[in-house]
Amino acid sequence: MSPKITTELLKQLRQVMKSPKYVQEPVQAYIVPSGDAHQSEYIAPCDCRRAFISGFDGSAGTAIVTEQHAAMWTDGRYFLQAAHQMDNNWTLMKMGLKDTPTQEDWLVSVLPEGSKVGVDPFIIPADQWKRMSKALRSAGHDLVPVKENLIDTIWTDCPQRPCKPLITLDLSYAGVSWRDKIVALRSKMAERKVLWFVVTALDEVAWLFNLRGSDVEYNPVFFAYAVIGMNTIRLFIDGDRMMDPAVREHLQLDSTLEPEFKIQVMPYGSILSELQAVVAGLSPKEKVWLSDKASYALTEAIPKAYRYLTPYTPICIAKAVKNSSETEGMRRAHIKDAVALCELFNWLEKEVPKGTVTEIIAADKAEEFRSQQKDFVELSFATISSTGPNGAIIHYKPVPETNRTLSVNEIYLLDSGAQYKDGTTDVTRTMHFGTPSAYEKECFTYVLKGHIAVSAAIFPNGTKGHLLDSFARSALWDCGLDYLHGTGHGVGSFLNVHEGPCGISYKTFADEPLEAGMIVSDEPGYYEDGSFGIRIENVVLVIPAETKYNFKNRGSLTFEPLTLVPIQTKMIDVNLLTQKECNWVNDYHQKCREVIGAELERQGRHEALRWLIRETEPLIRVQ
Amino acid sequence: MSPKITTELLKQLRQVMKSPKYVQEPVQAYIVPSGDAHQSEYIAPCDCRRAFISGFDGSAGTAIVTEQHAAMWTDGRYFLQAAHQMDNNWTLMKMGLKDTPTQEDWLVSVLPEGSKVGVDPFIIPADQWKRMSKALRSAGHDLVPVKENLIDTIWTDCPQRPCKPLITLDLSYAGVSWRDKIVALRSKMAERKVLWFVVTALDEVAWLFNLRGSDVEYNPVFFAYAVIGMNTIRLFIDGDRMMDPAVREHLQLDSTLEPEFKIQVMPYGSILSELQAVVAGLSPKEKVWLSDKASYALTEAIPKAYRYLTPYTPICIAKAVKNSSETEGMRRAHIKDAVALCELFNWLEKEVPKGTVTEIIAADKAEEFRSQQKDFVELSFATISSTGPNGAIIHYKPVPETNRTLSVNEIYLLDSGAQYKDGTTDVTRTMHFGTPSAYEKECFTYVLKGHIAVSAAIFPNGTKGHLLDSFARSALWDCGLDYLHGTGHGVGSFLNVHEGPCGISYKTFADEPLEAGMIVSDEPGYYEDGSFGIRIENVVLVIPAETKYNFKNRGSLTFEPLTLVPIQTKMIDVNLLTQKECNWVNDYHQKCREVIGAELERQGRHEALRWLIRETEPLIRVQ
Repeated sequence: MSPKITTELLKQLRQVMKSPKYVQEPVQAYIVPSGDAHQSEYIAPCDCRRAFISGFDGSAGTAIVTEQHAAMWTDGRYFLQAAHQMDNNWTLMKMGLKDTPTQEDWLVSVLPEGSKVGVDPFIIPADQWKRMSKALRSAGHDLVPVKENLIDTIWTDCPQRPCKPLITLDLSYAGVSWRDKIVALRSKMAERKVLWFVVTALDEVAWLFNLRGSDVEYNPVFFAYAVIGMNTIRLFIDGDRMMDPAVREHLQLDSTLEPEFKIQVMPYGSILSELQAVVAGLSPKEKVWLSDKASYALTEAIPKAYRYLTPYTPICIAKAVKNSSETEGMRRAHIKDAVALCELFNWLEKEVPKGTVTEIIAADKAEEFRSQQKDFVELSFATISSTGPNGAIIHYKPVPETNRTLSVNEIYLLDSGAQYKDGTTDVTRTMHFGTPSAYEKECFTYVLKGHIAVSAAIFPNGTKGHLLDSFARSALWDCGLDYLHGTGHGVGSFLNVHEGPCGISYKTFADEPLEAGMIVSDEPGYYEDGSFGIRIENVVLVIPAETKYNFKNRGSLTFEPLTLVPIQTKMIDVNLLTQKECNWVNDYHQKCREVIGAELERQGRHEALRWLIRETEPLIRVQ
Repeated sequence: MSPKITTELLKQLRQVMKSPKYVQEPVQAYIVPSGDAHQSEYIAPCDCRRAFISGFDGSAGTAIVTEQHAAMWTDGRYFLQAAHQMDNNWTLMKMGLKDTPTQEDWLVSVLPEGSKVGVDPFIIPADQWKRMSKALRSAGHDLVPVKENLIDTIWTDCPQRPCKPLITLDLSYAGVSWRDKIVALRSKMAERKVLWFVVTALDEVAWLFNLRGSDVEYNPVFFAYAVIGMNTIRLFIDGDRMMDPAVREHLQLDSTLEPEFKIQVMPYGSILSELQAVVAGLSPKEKVWLSDKASYALTEAIPKAYRYLTPYTPICIAKAVKNSSETEGMRRAHIKDAVALCELFNWLEKEVPKGTVTEIIAADKAEEFRSQQKDFVELSFATISSTGPNGAIIHYKPVPETNRTLSVNEIYLLDSGAQYKDGTTDVTRTMHFGTPSAYEKECFTYVLKGHIAVSAAIFPNGTKGHLLDSFARSALWDCGLDYLHGTGHGVGSFLNVHEGPCGISYKTFADEPLEAGMIVSDEPGYYEDGSFGIRIENVVLVIPAETKYNFKNRGSLTFEPLTLVPIQTKMIDVNLLTQKECNWVNDYHQKCREVIGAELERQGRHEALRWLIRETEPLIRVQ
C-alpha cells in the first residue's frame, strides 16, 4: 500500500479556502469530517471526501487542513492503516492516547489569532459543531459554515450520488408494520409533547418504513429523510424508485388511507426548505424533535425555542430492541452464515498448505459460500481477511499491494459478515493451519477468556454495556496485554452492522442500558504489531438470565451467542482455562455441532459437516 | 428514629418564598442543596440547611420545596435513612433508579407556567446552575439567584460559623512546602496561560498551605478561600487565628520574603469583592481559573471571556497523587488504626456475649482505642456501628432511638476511621460473634470475592477507576445480588476521607485516570433490607504492577492494601473461593500478622496480639 500523494490537492484546497467564489471571508482551516449528511458510518463514494483529500479510507477519521498543516484524527483500529495510506503532508493524530490533542486544542495551538475555521454545515453533526464552535470562540476564533463543500469544488471526477431500487420488507421479516411503527413513534412524540419528528439517519428511515436499499455499500439503506407529524408523513427521496409497484403497494401510496397514514413523497433536496416551512408554521411551545447528531444545517433550521434534541431518537431505541420476527430472522441468518464459514474453513484447511490462497482469494471464497445461502443480499462490511502481520492492522482490508498468501506458518484472522434478508451477521475467527507457537496460543487463550467473560456475564437489568468492557480485558491485563478498541457494538437486523444506542466499550458512557432483545457483538482481541492479530467475535443476543436470588425481582440479563462457528481448539492452551471456561467452550461447540450440523446435513454439505464434527470435539482439561 | 415534623417550617419557608423582603418576585420553588459555599461534603452545623428543613441529615441530598410539594433527592446509601427521618410532607426521590425523575424534569412537571425557581447563588455549584437553568429555561421557567438564604431567614436558632485554631503541618508530614506547591501551581497556570487561580474547596486551601483546621467535623479544614496570582497570594480567612505565632512562622508572615511569596491575609467575607477587583483589572485574554464546581456566585463574578473552568483543579489532581512522606504517613496511620481495631474486636468478642454492648458503646470504644494512638486528631467520619437490620442502612449512624445491642445472633458492621496527623483511615469490617448462617456466609464470601477482584486487579497505565467497578460486582451478579453504591472513593492524607478526582464507581465517567501514589477505598457490600448489611473495605494505594508483557512498556498498575485488619474467616465459605482468592486472603493475613503483630508487641498489647494471631490463621481450601 503506497500513500496517496496529496501535495497538489492540498495546494488546491488551500486556494479555494481563500477564494471569494466559495467563502465570504478566507478560512484559515477547513474541517473534513468522515460522514455524509446523515452522519452515516459507511458512506457512498461521492461522500468519501476525507479519503479523497488524504488517502486514508478507514471508516472513522476527521481531517483538518490549515495553511501550514494537514492532520488526521483516527482511533486505535486505524493507526497503522492511516500511517500507511497518508503521505508526509499529513500528521496522524492517534485518538485515545494520552498526549494526543483534541481537534479543538490542536486548532487553537496552530491557528493565527482571530482565525476562521470552515466546515460544510450538512456534514458536521450539531453536537460536534457546538463543542468545536465553543472551544474555538473561547480562544478568539470562529467556526463558520461554508455552504459549498470545498472538497467537491476541487474533486473533478466526483462520482454521482447513487439512487438504486428499493427492497420492501415483508411483515414476516420486519415483525411490525410501518403503520404500527408510526403509531408507536407518535405516541413517544406525544409523551414528550413534540409535534414533529425529523428522521435523519438512513437506517432509521429504512427501519421506520420497512424498506431497504443499496445506495451505500454494505449498509442496506437509501438516501432519504422523513418528517413525521402527528397527522402527516413526509418522505424525502429521489429518483423513480417510488414508481416501483411493489414499493407503492408496500407504502399504500395509491390506497385510500386515513390521512394520518398518507405518505407525501418529496424530493430529497427539499428537506431544508420543507423543514423551514414546518418551522414557520409553529406556534410557541410547539417542538420539533431530532437527534443531537443531526447535521448542523438541519438543526440550525429549527430555532432553539422549537428544538427538542436527544442523543438517541425513539426510533434508534426501538430499532435496537429486536422483536421476535427479527430475532428469529437473526438466528436463521447466523445459521446460514455458519454453514458458509464451515465450508470456507474446511476448504482453507485443504488449500492453504498448497500455498495458493491469498487473503483476497480467501475473502472472495467466503463471499462465494455466503452467496449460496438463501436470502443473501450482500456483505455487511468489507471483509477483513488478514494473515501474519496484516492481522495486526485492526480494520485491514486486503488490496493487491498488501495481499499476502496464507500459510501454515502464520495466524489467519477473518472478520466478515453478510446481509441476508432475515438478518445481519458479523463474525471473527482466528485460525492457524499449521502449528501455532506457545506464545500465540497463550495470547489467543487470554482473548478467549475475555470473550467468555463477557458472553457468560450475568448482570442486573438496567446495566449499561460499557460496564462489561473490563471483563473482556481482565485476563489480558493480568499478563500485561490489552487491545485498543471497544469490545462490542450494536448490530442491526438486515441493517447497519454497527448501530446504537448500546455497545460494550470503555469509550462510551452515554450508551443506553442493555435490554432483552438487543443484539451486540462480543469481540475482544490482541494485536502484535508486525507479527499477528487475534480476535474472537460472536454476535450475541441479550436474554433474561436466571439467578439464585434474582436481584430482589429487579431481574437480570445475560447473552446468548447467535454466531455458531467453532472456535479453533488448536489455538487454545487448555491449561490456562478454568473448568468453567472449559465447560463454556464445550457447551458452545456442542450447540454448534447440533444446530449447524443439522443444517449442513440438510444442505447435503457432508465434507463441511465432518470438519465441523472434528472441530467441535470437547476440550479436556488436565487438573 | 422518628421523623422531623416539618409542617410549620415548610409553611414559613413558603411564606418567605413570596415575601418582597427577601425576593424581588415570588419564587414558586426553592432549592436547598446539600453543600456550603465551598461545595463541601461534610458541612458545619450552620450550613446544615437541608437537614434543618427536612430532617434528613445524610451527607448527600437536595431538597426542593414548591408551593404544593417538598421533595428530596438522595442516592442508594440513604434511601432507608431518608425515609425514616422525613415526615409525610416529603417525597423521597431515589436517585439511580430508572423511574426517578431528575430535579429539572420533576420541576417542569409540577410547576405552573412561567415559574421562578430560587436558590442561594453561593451554595449552588456553577455547573449545576447551568444545567438546571438551561432545562428550566427551555420549559419556560427561570432559575433565579436569591441573595439572602431563605432557610437562614426562618432558622431562628442557627449556630454560628466556626472559627477554630489552625494546625501547621510540618514538612516531614506534608512532604512538599507550601512555597513549592505555589511554584508548581503557578507553572500549571503558566501552561494554561491563566493569570489567576481561585481556590474555593476547603481541602484545597488546607493542602496548598500545609495547614489544617477543625471548623468542620471529621474534615480537618477551615473556612477560607485563596486567590493565587503569578506574583501575589491572597488568603481569605477570619478570626484571630492568624495571630497564632506558629501559624505566622509557618506562613512566614513576618519574614522578609520575595514579594511573590508574601501572603496577604484578608477577611473571609471579602472574597467576592476582591475577586471583582481582580477581574476589573484584567486585560483582554487574561484569564481566571477556577473549578467548574465553584459556586455560581463566584463564577458569575468572572465574566465569561475571562473565565477558565475545569472539572478538576491542578490542586485537586496534585493532592490526589501522594508523595513519599504522605504515603509513609498513611502507612503509619493505618498500622496504628489496625492496632486500635484489633483491641476493639478482641474486646467485642469478650463483651458481646454478655449482652451489654450497644452500637453506640462499640463506636465509643473504637474511638477510645484510636485516641490512644500517637498523633490521633479526631474521627474521619461518623462511625457506622450497626448490627442486624441497622447494617442494611448503608450510611447508618447509631442514635439513642435506634441503638441496638450487639448479640451473638446478628451480623455486626463497623465502618470507621480516624484523622491522625500522619494520615486518614477508613475501614469496614463485618463480624459475627456467634455462628453465621450459611446464607450470611455465602453473601459475605461474594462480597469478599469482589473486594479481592478489585484489590488484585492489574490494569494498564491510563485506566480510569470506573472501569474497575464491575470487577467488584461480578461474583454478586452471578447469583443475582448487587449493591447500590460505588465501590471506592479517593482518600485524603490527613484531609477529607472522600476526595476527587479518582474513584471506583459505575456512576462516574469523568474521573481522572488512576496513577501510582493515588489512594482509594475498595468497599463492595451487600445489604438485605430488614436483616443485615455486609461491607468489606480497605484503603488501597495505587502502585506499579509487574506483568509478564508489561503492556508494550506502557506500564501497569495494581493496588497495595494500606488497611491491615483481619477479615473474619468465620464469615468465609472457603469452598466458594478459588485457590487464587484463598491465597490472597492468606497472604493478606500473613502481612497483617507480621506488620500489625510487631506493632501490638511493641505497644505491649499482648491480648490483642493473641487475637490477631488467631484471626489470621490460614484458610485451607478443600479441593
